[in-house]
Amino acid sequence: MGRGDLTRERILTAATLLASRVGFDGLTIGALAEELSMSKSGLFAHFGSKEALQLQVLESEIARFEREVFHPAIRQPRGIPRLEALFEGWLAWNAHSPSRGGCLIVTASVEFDDQPGPLLDAVKEAQTLLLTSIARAVKIAIDVGHLRPDVDPDQMAFDLYGIVLGHHFVRRVRNDPKADARARAAFQNLIAAARA
Amino acid sequence: MGRGDLTRERILTAATLLASRVGFDGLTIGALAEELSMSKSGLFAHFGSKEALQLQVLESEIARFEREVFHPAIRQPRGIPRLEALFEGWLAWNAHSPSRGGCLIVTASVEFDDQPGPLLDAVKEAQTLLLTSIARAVKIAIDVGHLRPDVDPDQMAFDLYGIVLGHHFVRRVRNDPKADARARAAFQNLIAAARA
Repeated sequence: MGRGDLTRERILTAATLLASRVGFDGLTIGALAEELSMSKSGLFAHFGSKEALQLQVLESEIARFEREVFHPAIRQPRGIPRLEALFEGWLAWNAHSPSRGGCLIVTASVEFDDQPGPLLDAVKEAQTLLLTSIARAVKIAIDVGHLRPDVDPDQMAFDLYGIVLGHHFVRRVRNDPKADARARAAFQNLIAAARA
Repeated sequence: MGRGDLTRERILTAATLLASRVGFDGLTIGALAEELSMSKSGLFAHFGSKEALQLQVLESEIARFEREVFHPAIRQPRGIPRLEALFEGWLAWNAHSPSRGGCLIVTASVEFDDQPGPLLDAVKEAQTLLLTSIARAVKIAIDVGHLRPDVDPDQMAFDLYGIVLGHHFVRRVRNDPKADARARAAFQNLIAAARA
């Protein structure tokens, strides 16, 4: 890793923390320059535009989600254990990521859902990847005989996504100590209803 | 309704549309003054501060949610019909409210969940009201014999909230035409599993 990469990584980390505090709309080259005590022209040289900066932050968060939630789950045995690992990894992500500002993919979804462009495209792609990956894990759980053949993988992916969003909002807004238990009960009910 | 009220209503409507477009952080007295071609000092006379303006917009949206989603549901017969009306009203709210910007209560939840203050207090209160109102409707459905006595009203409120959030995100981010059907299937599964 060269010196340029280190700087880039340091800038991206600061940009991610800034976005988690003020949202993507507040993630301007000027605000980031102030945060890092760097010149705006130096940051422009790195990113070129506010939109390119926003996009890199979002894409690096999506990549981090894949590394921290998806990849560990894929290393678990196929079937229900893999679904459980995915779910638990996601709850942990909600609790810790990326800072006290909450999941940046959720933030980006809310900010860009009405603004066609590369940011909305990236959010769409992330949501599609998320839902199809869960559906694939469900399909495998059917194939290995853990879940019933008549379970609809896309429906179960939607259901799981809803549970995790409920957890994110209840946990973050009201700091409800029961959020984890509620989400786990919902997940166990979902699995129980689909079990072979 | 006096002339002052009409002006106030017109200002609040414009402020709500602005917030749905740019978020609460972008809802400044200056931006709103520009939107309305009014003087900043005139708006300050109305609201006093950016925070007071944000709070009034959020509170008027919460009141509108109660009017458009809760009150029509309460007029339905107790039990499952009332839960269905609540759920369907909420899906309609997701689809239309308040403009193409999506549900402002969701937006405020994401923006303020890490910023203690009156805005976070209002979001917390709205979420508590929401969850306890659903739980109360579930409790009534148990009392009238539509749902089993061992159903946990608070768990079912969490489950319903998750389904509606999943619907909001899938519908808005990917404009998925199946979002309504997925949410309805999830709701029907939830009711079926709890039916007496």
